[in-house]
Amino acid sequence: MSIHSLTVYLGSGGKAPEMFKEEAQNFGAYLAQNNIRTVYGGMDAGTMGTLANGALSNGGDVLGVIPTSIKDRDFVHKRLLEQGKMIIVDGMWERKKILVDEGDAAIALPGGYGTIDEIFEFLYWGIKGYHNKPLGLLNINNYWTPLIDFIEHISHEGELEKRAMEALFIDDDPVALLKKLEGYHPRHEVKHIKGVETYISYIEESNLEPTQRPIVIEHTNVEEVYRLANALVLKQLNKITRPIGVYDKDRLFEKFKLWVYTAAADRFITPYCPEMAVYAEEREVLQQLIDMHIHVSVDLHEKWDETEKKKRP
Amino acid sequence: MSIHSLTVYLGSGGKAPEMFKEEAQNFGAYLAQNNIRTVYGGMDAGTMGTLANGALSNGGDVLGVIPTSIKDRDFVHKRLLEQGKMIIVDGMWERKKILVDEGDAAIALPGGYGTIDEIFEFLYWGIKGYHNKPLGLLNINNYWTPLIDFIEHISHEGELEKRAMEALFIDDDPVALLKKLEGYHPRHEVKHIKGVETYISYIEESNLEPTQRPIVIEHTNVEEVYRLANALVLKQLNKITRPIGVYDKDRLFEKFKLWVYTAAADRFITPYCPEMAVYAEEREVLQQLIDMHIHVSVDLHEKWDETEKKKRP
Repeated sequence: MSIHSLTVYLGSGGKAPEMFKEEAQNFGAYLAQNNIRTVYGGMDAGTMGTLANGALSNGGDVLGVIPTSIKDRDFVHKRLLEQGKMIIVDGMWERKKILVDEGDAAIALPGGYGTIDEIFEFLYWGIKGYHNKPLGLLNINNYWTPLIDFIEHISHEGELEKRAMEALFIDDDPVALLKKLEGYHPRHEVKHIKGVETYISYIEESNLEPTQRPIVIEHTNVEEVYRLANALVLKQLNKITRPIGVYDKDRLFEKFKLWVYTAAADRFITPYCPEMAVYAEEREVLQQLIDMHIHVSVDLHEKWDETEKKKRP
Repeated sequence: MSIHSLTVYLGSGGKAPEMFKEEAQNFGAYLAQNNIRTVYGGMDAGTMGTLANGALSNGGDVLGVIPTSIKDRDFVHKRLLEQGKMIIVDGMWERKKILVDEGDAAIALPGGYGTIDEIFEFLYWGIKGYHNKPLGLLNINNYWTPLIDFIEHISHEGELEKRAMEALFIDDDPVALLKKLEGYHPRHEVKHIKGVETYISYIEESNLEPTQRPIVIEHTNVEEVYRLANALVLKQLNKITRPIGVYDKDRLFEKFKLWVYTAAADRFITPYCPEMAVYAEEREVLQQLIDMHIHVSVDLHEKWDETEKKKRP
């Protein structure tokens, strides 16, 4: 398959390591120089900002997708807005759907809970047959290694998981990664035609239910891990306050937790985000932890430091 | 001051990034080539092992200090044992005391809870006047940056803290760091003569009390942070199961937590170690979390992977 438009998932936090920002900038420049359109989350902050600006300053075509709830905020990419290169949508779900639709393939650069929500959603909807696109993890400085180790665990869960993994590619070099994506031949047709009805958002909807019933993750298959990643991002965005419990049988989630710590250490999530879920190896202990749930609120403004905020108008 | 003998604090976990192992090896070689004796924790695993072997293979003088409880284990440095270059002591406390005594200065390479226990102990006993030696943090790949940020917070706590910080040096280059340590001129005489009575272990003893009373950290001064670091290492070693609660007023411990996540991501502590303490900004919430304490047991064998274990006899 050839790639004319690439969806890029990545973080917008300003405190990410400089190295990641530079890599994102170079990646944006590379896409522009190779006439590949960059589709991304529309922010002008952190690695998202350097990606877009790397592409734009090399004459690249860039499409941003942003929900109305944040379109007036300081960190939305102004130039894309002015040039009509920004799709403004009602909610996070539609944004994610358009991001999947508008790319011939997707690549994830380092990011936080939002990015893993997008990664597992992409894999899950691939399994369900709603798209047949490949996904690449650009493993800059081994950022994704713990998550890759974790995915290797869960890839043994079933036939559908194995199929999803066939569409998942990993490399630390963006050019090599794009080559791998181009070499992918989808094994199935997509279930529906492209359009607003393409994907069913029932997992996000079930997480968003107006209840305090806990979200309990029982297994390590792609669906359950997507449910977890989605719950974490919704909680981080203060859209839910439900307890999130992970039944960590045989400590299978160990490597997932290592990724969470990597994301915190690299400032893609705040130091309080790792505490948004509880993990236990035994059912009774998990139930106790869920019963004792105390909501950890997160201030997303912690994603950007003072100097970065001051640069804004 | 001139440095003829240097105490090196660092981790022994086999899963540490290769880069850290190489840096430790090069550092050991450098000390040997410059006729500086290496004093360290006596293990032949992880960065500790590569440090010792880097020194030994360059004809360096190396002294290991190890407690009897682990002297027969697989990971103790055999060659040092055979050559009588190993001091065998009764417990962890005496080991730490000898490590302070035997060096003219100390440098910390990346490590986990054990290493921060040694760092804050070194600073604390310096404050108390029981030694007047400088301490360096070798900031390989920014490993110590979150902890350094945290220490910058707490350095405003009082006069004694400021004095401790005058003896603390940071560099990512070992040669430059050693130069800084050599340039240090102690402002005070030590309180006692060198000997077994030199240091009082009351904080470690209070942490070790046979009780389930929680260890609650109230402040960010050096004494309290040492109490926290010490409690974490004792819990990691399964020597205590007491709840550890941190009163995280104004989220001052944010940067400390970031270091904890760095240590987990780099495998100096296991993925379950960050859960050995609870943090809360409000007293009632902290009390609730402490009341709900569930002991997280840690398997220290997770520090080494299967291939490393198999290399052993």
